Amino acid sequence: METKAIKPYVVGMDIGGTNTVFGIVDKDGNVLCQDSIKTKAYPVIEDYVNAIGDKLDVLIESVGGKDKINGMGVGAPNGNYYTGNIEFAPNLAWKGIVPLAKLFTERLGIPCKLTNDANAAAIGEMTYGAAKGMKHFIMITLGTGVGSGIVIDGKLVYGHDGFAGELGHITAVPDGRICGCGRKGCLEAYCSATGIVRTAKEILTSSYDASMLRNIPEAELTSKDIFDCAMAGDAIACDIFQKTGELLGKALANFTVFSSPEAFIIFGGLAKAGDLIFKPVKEAMEANMLAVFKNKVKVLPSMLKDADAAVLGASALGWEV
Amino acid sequence: METKAIKPYVVGMDIGGTNTVFGIVDKDGNVLCQDSIKTKAYPVIEDYVNAIGDKLDVLIESVGGKDKINGMGVGAPNGNYYTGNIEFAPNLAWKGIVPLAKLFTERLGIPCKLTNDANAAAIGEMTYGAAKGMKHFIMITLGTGVGSGIVIDGKLVYGHDGFAGELGHITAVPDGRICGCGRKGCLEAYCSATGIVRTAKEILTSSYDASMLRNIPEAELTSKDIFDCAMAGDAIACDIFQKTGELLGKALANFTVFSSPEAFIIFGGLAKAGDLIFKPVKEAMEANMLAVFKNKVKVLPSMLKDADAAVLGASALGWEV
Repeated sequence: METKAIKPYVVGMDIGGTNTVFGIVDKDGNVLCQDSIKTKAYPVIEDYVNAIGDKLDVLIESVGGKDKINGMGVGAPNGNYYTGNIEFAPNLAWKGIVPLAKLFTERLGIPCKLTNDANAAAIGEMTYGAAKGMKHFIMITLGTGVGSGIVIDGKLVYGHDGFAGELGHITAVPDGRICGCGRKGCLEAYCSATGIVRTAKEILTSSYDASMLRNIPEAELTSKDIFDCAMAGDAIACDIFQKTGELLGKALANFTVFSSPEAFIIFGGLAKAGDLIFKPVKEAMEANMLAVFKNKVKVLPSMLKDADAAVLGASALGWEV
Repeated sequence: METKAIKPYVVGMDIGGTNTVFGIVDKDGNVLCQDSIKTKAYPVIEDYVNAIGDKLDVLIESVGGKDKINGMGVGAPNGNYYTGNIEFAPNLAWKGIVPLAKLFTERLGIPCKLTNDANAAAIGEMTYGAAKGMKHFIMITLGTGVGSGIVIDGKLVYGHDGFAGELGHITAVPDGRICGCGRKGCLEAYCSATGIVRTAKEILTSSYDASMLRNIPEAELTSKDIFDCAMAGDAIACDIFQKTGELLGKALANFTVFSSPEAFIIFGGLAKAGDLIFKPVKEAMEANMLAVFKNKVKVLPSMLKDADAAVLGASALGWEV
């Protein structure tokens, strides 16, 4: 994305179910300063906006005041780019439709744009990260859920209603596991951090084979445990990553026929498992790829710095205002 | 698509494995005149271009000469919009890479653009048909194969290499039927004219239930026969349409999460089966739709006139040159 902005900084903010992180970013993607609040502590939206506004006033003052700020970008669950609203987000306290961009524009006197967190990550990756210079790529975020941001001709795809790019809810396994969305067999039900734990429980239940994973109480099992056991050579843990990677790789082959991207950029907790996940993903993607796309599509890890990724991704929208 | 062209006519040409049809079209989508040749009669590409060139010279002269022609648009199997080449088309006699747009530009002295047939249909639908005024829709062509053309923000999606939009090769049934592409379970292996015949043979083989379809020699069975029997109330033929429609409807629900289109436009032989196919498609699409997209997405039949559709679709590219 070309930066035509003349003011030197943007505000980035990432709204999570637990924490809201916000900071000030320069054109090279340096997070100059950042702060956070507990999202859940503010069930009334006006209180939330004011609490963040007070903290942002301080940060903004520290870089020279709001004349130096080009705009504000927000990544939010169920954030709609077209309207600037958060619409019916299941994991946030504010119900219905919340005009978040408008509230922040009024509070701060800075133009504000908003989109969902995976789209924000895609814009961040394009502006500062692994997709710099790419016109066609798909961001896949592997976290508590599976999110995506699709870029075609250098532009984020928002679709007819602003909600395009929900690739976590492509059917990966027809009539498969129930997903949080109420449907069956979604990619998210298998390839998210919670999905991989469900796979582990299924495999552990279906056999008596020895595994280090059996030393962890089932209710406490996390994707990090599975990663640690796989790195320690545990066969079942390795098999879980293999199966998860295969499903994701097959899904990426299907996504390719849609927009023929140059690359998939993988972001989030599971992406940190390195070859444990990237190797089966790439193998299954190529094995299932339509001939015309074979050996053309890269699968790359995100290059956004971890501690800054959420703020960075969202901040990139602040150059667009 | 806005028509900024100042010249009043375009040439449209559709290259099929059997016939090549070409004609002259005005801004309202009227095909003023058309002609055709047998594609297979010209195994040498230069002969093919000359044969069409000679016939087109006559058509062009009849509307006032080439000063009246804004451009030429071609729909071709494996046509690449970016390069103007036909690349490795399995069903055409010309092997390897054929610089078709360049050859016609040189022969006729008219700028020429080319894309695959399904993309041409999408542009045609947007310019003259059911998608007039739509910015976000997906064209699905149900013919010998299943093709697609994806429009986002009023633009055809070509992707990184010019081959985006091969939705016929999304996996509809994991580890399902072998598809012509060599992979398993592609949508095309089920929802094309040949796919529905394969479904018929499977169902007829797996039961002894009476059916009018059993009166037709299996080797001669066509999708038209299945349609005729279904219209006559044959239970098995109706069931075949139901199953085909369900698979397609589930696929459309999956496609929706990608680009959130306003509508799917269905074109081609099977689309003419009306409610026999549209009813199960719509029901399965809504039943499998992610909540945020429910009751938002239309499924519409093509509005391109049948006899003219191929020429019309391709001709729309002639306004873009």
